[in-house]
Amino acid sequence: MERIRPEDIDRARALIDAGDYAALDALLEPLHSADVADILGELEIDQQRVCLKRLGTERAAEVLTELDSKSGQALLQLLSDREVVDLIEELPSDDAADLISNLPAAKTERIEALLPSEDRDDIHELLEFGPETAGGLMQVEHVWVHEDATIQDAIDFVRRMAEEVENPQRVYVVNANEQLVGVLSIMDLVLKAPDIRVRDVMERNVVSVPVDMDQEQVAALFSRYDEFSMPVVDAEQRLVGRITVDDIIDVMEEEATEDISHIAGTSDEEFGETSFVRVSGIRLPWLIMGFVGEMVGAFVMSRYQASIATFVVLAFFIPLIVATAGNHGMQAAIVAVREIALGQASLVHVGRRILKEMQVAFLNSVVLGLLLFSFVYLWRHDTALGVLLWGSLTLTILVASLIGAAVPLLLHRWRVDPAVATGPFITVSNDVIGMAIYLTLATAYLKSH
Amino acid sequence: MERIRPEDIDRARALIDAGDYAALDALLEPLHSADVADILGELEIDQQRVCLKRLGTERAAEVLTELDSKSGQALLQLLSDREVVDLIEELPSDDAADLISNLPAAKTERIEALLPSEDRDDIHELLEFGPETAGGLMQVEHVWVHEDATIQDAIDFVRRMAEEVENPQRVYVVNANEQLVGVLSIMDLVLKAPDIRVRDVMERNVVSVPVDMDQEQVAALFSRYDEFSMPVVDAEQRLVGRITVDDIIDVMEEEATEDISHIAGTSDEEFGETSFVRVSGIRLPWLIMGFVGEMVGAFVMSRYQASIATFVVLAFFIPLIVATAGNHGMQAAIVAVREIALGQASLVHVGRRILKEMQVAFLNSVVLGLLLFSFVYLWRHDTALGVLLWGSLTLTILVASLIGAAVPLLLHRWRVDPAVATGPFITVSNDVIGMAIYLTLATAYLKSH
Repeated sequence: MERIRPEDIDRARALIDAGDYAALDALLEPLHSADVADILGELEIDQQRVCLKRLGTERAAEVLTELDSKSGQALLQLLSDREVVDLIEELPSDDAADLISNLPAAKTERIEALLPSEDRDDIHELLEFGPETAGGLMQVEHVWVHEDATIQDAIDFVRRMAEEVENPQRVYVVNANEQLVGVLSIMDLVLKAPDIRVRDVMERNVVSVPVDMDQEQVAALFSRYDEFSMPVVDAEQRLVGRITVDDIIDVMEEEATEDISHIAGTSDEEFGETSFVRVSGIRLPWLIMGFVGEMVGAFVMSRYQASIATFVVLAFFIPLIVATAGNHGMQAAIVAVREIALGQASLVHVGRRILKEMQVAFLNSVVLGLLLFSFVYLWRHDTALGVLLWGSLTLTILVASLIGAAVPLLLHRWRVDPAVATGPFITVSNDVIGMAIYLTLATAYLKSH
Repeated sequence: MERIRPEDIDRARALIDAGDYAALDALLEPLHSADVADILGELEIDQQRVCLKRLGTERAAEVLTELDSKSGQALLQLLSDREVVDLIEELPSDDAADLISNLPAAKTERIEALLPSEDRDDIHELLEFGPETAGGLMQVEHVWVHEDATIQDAIDFVRRMAEEVENPQRVYVVNANEQLVGVLSIMDLVLKAPDIRVRDVMERNVVSVPVDMDQEQVAALFSRYDEFSMPVVDAEQRLVGRITVDDIIDVMEEEATEDISHIAGTSDEEFGETSFVRVSGIRLPWLIMGFVGEMVGAFVMSRYQASIATFVVLAFFIPLIVATAGNHGMQAAIVAVREIALGQASLVHVGRRILKEMQVAFLNSVVLGLLLFSFVYLWRHDTALGVLLWGSLTLTILVASLIGAAVPLLLHRWRVDPAVATGPFITVSNDVIGMAIYLTLATAYLKSH
């Protein structure tokens, strides 16, 4: 398959402007719809519209699902209701529901009125599930047979459904109550004798997903069981749809982006956001939170004004103590958050996890303390200051690591997303605590001499 | 399918100790091999061995691939060479190669001598590829037909390969030179007439993966093209294997963990590491790097000793300036690194990306500067100090954001993994730079009054 090159974009633009549609078709034909979407993303909206029309309805629908949601919306605004309906009818129900949910309300209503009632019901059903649940991820199209059917019946059914169900991986088997009782692979249809009953050859151990399960847990199931698609069931174990692994890959990218964004003190909404005002608006709440914390820190430090004024050298090491506290807190917190996300953090082992973090902290404080002591001794020839700093550093590292490790684990136990704790929150609280430890010890030392 | 409960582990332990193997079989039979591996992970090694033997060779081999590599190695040490060979013969080539690469060298040699020469060659071939390349991910087992074959030939071939190739998604089509020229889905075998020639119905646009491609890029291809499996080709376009999406899910988790670890200033090696000494050893290099930077910072600050001594209030705001620089640098860097990882960062748009980051920085500095000025004015009634801090803050934020955004993009352009730059490196350089800006401005102000 061809990949796009930057010159393809220029070429597409030139061909559209010249009205050379045959050459445009030849350019787009061998490309994957994801690549066509990339080209479209670089064109003016009128050029996009021309391109889309040249693709034919089926291809155009595929390309639409690959466009980012803003470009997609803008483009759909340009099309007539009839054209939008034709596109939606080409799409699997999950993509159709996503597309419709992004349209303005008035257009949605007109479009829905034009859809065949069956498609409308499917889409309505899907829109009722939370977007981050199994129901929000699934498509209602799937291939199923009754357990009393034969392999030949299954083949005939798959043949009828071939147009509608993309890439069927499995044929799900249900009983008289529509409950999921087994599964066949498409390979079974090739390999088994046509007159065998499905119930006699089906695999009875099926991993299924409850329709209200959170998407992060669904992704963990796919990862754990190495499945390519999974059936979705309602509370009565009735088969309602299927989730395919390509959607799970998107979920995993989304969840990793979300966690990484929280560490940075921003949100995954900023990705793809082109307005710098909105990006600033997304980041500022986190920054202001950290900022207010640091103002409290300035206030705390002013209480030690006398010590600093008598012994200015104390001030030189404040950023070092503060940064070390911040680094240790972040390491402990980020590792804990990642273990939770990977499902490796067992709630019964919280104590063990924190103990390990404290052991690491102690060892680090010995090494870093020795380094700091040597530096201070060589620079200032002051043993007392060296000892004071070593002591402050040790205490600061221990406290920062304890907070860093414990807060995410506790939040997770209280069912709050622990990733929100890892960013500015832990850094700033550790900054202020580290500074207070250092200056308190320093003041106590100065008073005793 | 049943899921495991904590009491299953206790029950398995009790049944093994009591020698009640029939009940043990009944407990394990309905479980997925990933769940059996979880139970095994909690047992003593002798109990693990008993369990493994009860599972039968095929099941035992599956469970082995689900165990973490340390438990797996320990368990394999207890088995005879013959037993290990039997297990390896059950595995797809990629899992077999992974297992063998973790054995001690002496055992590896004995095992290889016992393997059929064909399996040995496959495994040797795989072990020669880097573990983080397409070649290291692929399995050599795949289903292929010649383009001149008929659908019936393909069905016969799939039937013969059914034992060996797990979950075939596609039948790859090759020409007389073994070059990949097309693809059929397993569905085509069900739906097309048996006497049709493969070349007449195959899909000619196949996305394939070069055998030396980096695994992160392979994952991006799967995500982009929504594929469930992809063929791997050598430099001459000859088909050499296939990669399935379940392995890609593992790669994505691994890469996200790696990036998140680098942000924290640690490495993904620490996950699953039980020795706190080794965890400390993994983190210390990053911490020491940051620490040395902060020592330089202490040195820099000592140059401004006179200013601080005359005007101690300057010191109170050092942590605030430093933390704000750190936060802005981290946000800009982490967002850039994540965009690079998701393949959203275009190298031609580096300038646009940095411009946007500078606009955000400017807006943030207006809001935060106003906040800081108000705080200082209300607290100290000192307009000059407020203006000095506002100015320092603005300059610091702009410089920190520029460094944070530019460094990862430049590293990426120079083909260095940008994630290594986001942790302590950017934080510490921004700390020192922020401090220097603030104290230089403050000293200049003090001198002019």
